[in-house]
Amino acid sequence: MEDIYRPVKVVGIAGSLRKGSYNRALLDAAVELAPDNMEIEVLDIAPVPMYNADLDNDDDRPEAVRRLKQAVGEAEAILFVTPEYNWSIPGVLKNAIDWASRPVGRSPMTGKTAAIMGATQGMWGTIRAQDHLRDILASMRVAVVTHPQVLVHGAADKFDRHMNLIDEDARSFVRQLLENLRDEAMRRRISLEGLFSS
Amino acid sequence: MEDIYRPVKVVGIAGSLRKGSYNRALLDAAVELAPDNMEIEVLDIAPVPMYNADLDNDDDRPEAVRRLKQAVGEAEAILFVTPEYNWSIPGVLKNAIDWASRPVGRSPMTGKTAAIMGATQGMWGTIRAQDHLRDILASMRVAVVTHPQVLVHGAADKFDRHMNLIDEDARSFVRQLLENLRDEAMRRRISLEGLFSS
Repeated sequence: MEDIYRPVKVVGIAGSLRKGSYNRALLDAAVELAPDNMEIEVLDIAPVPMYNADLDNDDDRPEAVRRLKQAVGEAEAILFVTPEYNWSIPGVLKNAIDWASRPVGRSPMTGKTAAIMGATQGMWGTIRAQDHLRDILASMRVAVVTHPQVLVHGAADKFDRHMNLIDEDARSFVRQLLENLRDEAMRRRISLEGLFSS
Repeated sequence: MEDIYRPVKVVGIAGSLRKGSYNRALLDAAVELAPDNMEIEVLDIAPVPMYNADLDNDDDRPEAVRRLKQAVGEAEAILFVTPEYNWSIPGVLKNAIDWASRPVGRSPMTGKTAAIMGATQGMWGTIRAQDHLRDILASMRVAVVTHPQVLVHGAADKFDRHMNLIDEDARSFVRQLLENLRDEAMRRRISLEGLFSS
């Protein structure tokens, strides 16, 4: 039997594809700041093609989608690090979630624990994108850890020129959110597995 | 000088890529039911690639994106016909909007008039997707005509096997929404152009 206190496996997904993205840098910071008993694996969604229900079957499903679904399925928790585009999440991120969300009710997403972070050069910290993403995740029974909020506004001042997160408050919020994500995933694991352990 | 009462040009965009989509069929019904003084041109967003800010410049912008931006730019109004995926709009549709929304404040989307329709085999008629889309469109100063709501639920009973919209109530709502879209676009046109006409 597996050790019930084994590390929490997290898949980390950035919502922006551009190379110099503050959100990719924020995800890198999360990997660096991961607390004890948590492992974060970064998953690149760039190869995931547009969702088309005609291709969403075992014969036609694209290889990048298989890898996405496998990575999400093997993780206990998901860390989304996303910019805000037009008061919502990028289509790129929603598209990856659309693939991962099938089949409804028994997808790799169902029942996972998640946390959301976002960075922007603007003032409002990706608040609306995070609200939309919480709505979306609620649809597939993903439990979102909501505190502390990681809303990195004025990002140009919070990363150095090598894209390291240098703002101490932001680093502290990232660390705390990851600890809360780990603890929630552990509580969930214990409630699912612990009842049957000897 | 152009006739101020010329037909309203509408670009129609379906949010689903699959061939047998009820939403593509609903867009076809809208083309059929378009009222006097309105022309609807259907735009296929399937060729639009994933948004990547690194490619969003005059040298690298993909050809499908150029066509999308040109079509939106030349229209006075936009008709969105979209399924609901995970309590929001499909990533595929959001991605096309993300491209069309740049540059912020002076994009082809800015200041357009729009209407939203949706069809689903389920019970709730794409309500949440339409709410999210209204939030998204508000970010780029698109004026959304909100009534009547076109929420085609139980779609399997409302289209025939050739995907013709046969439900009389639904046809009436589509017609009425298109008339309201036309009238709002005309009011906007007259307020912009009419002040300066002789």
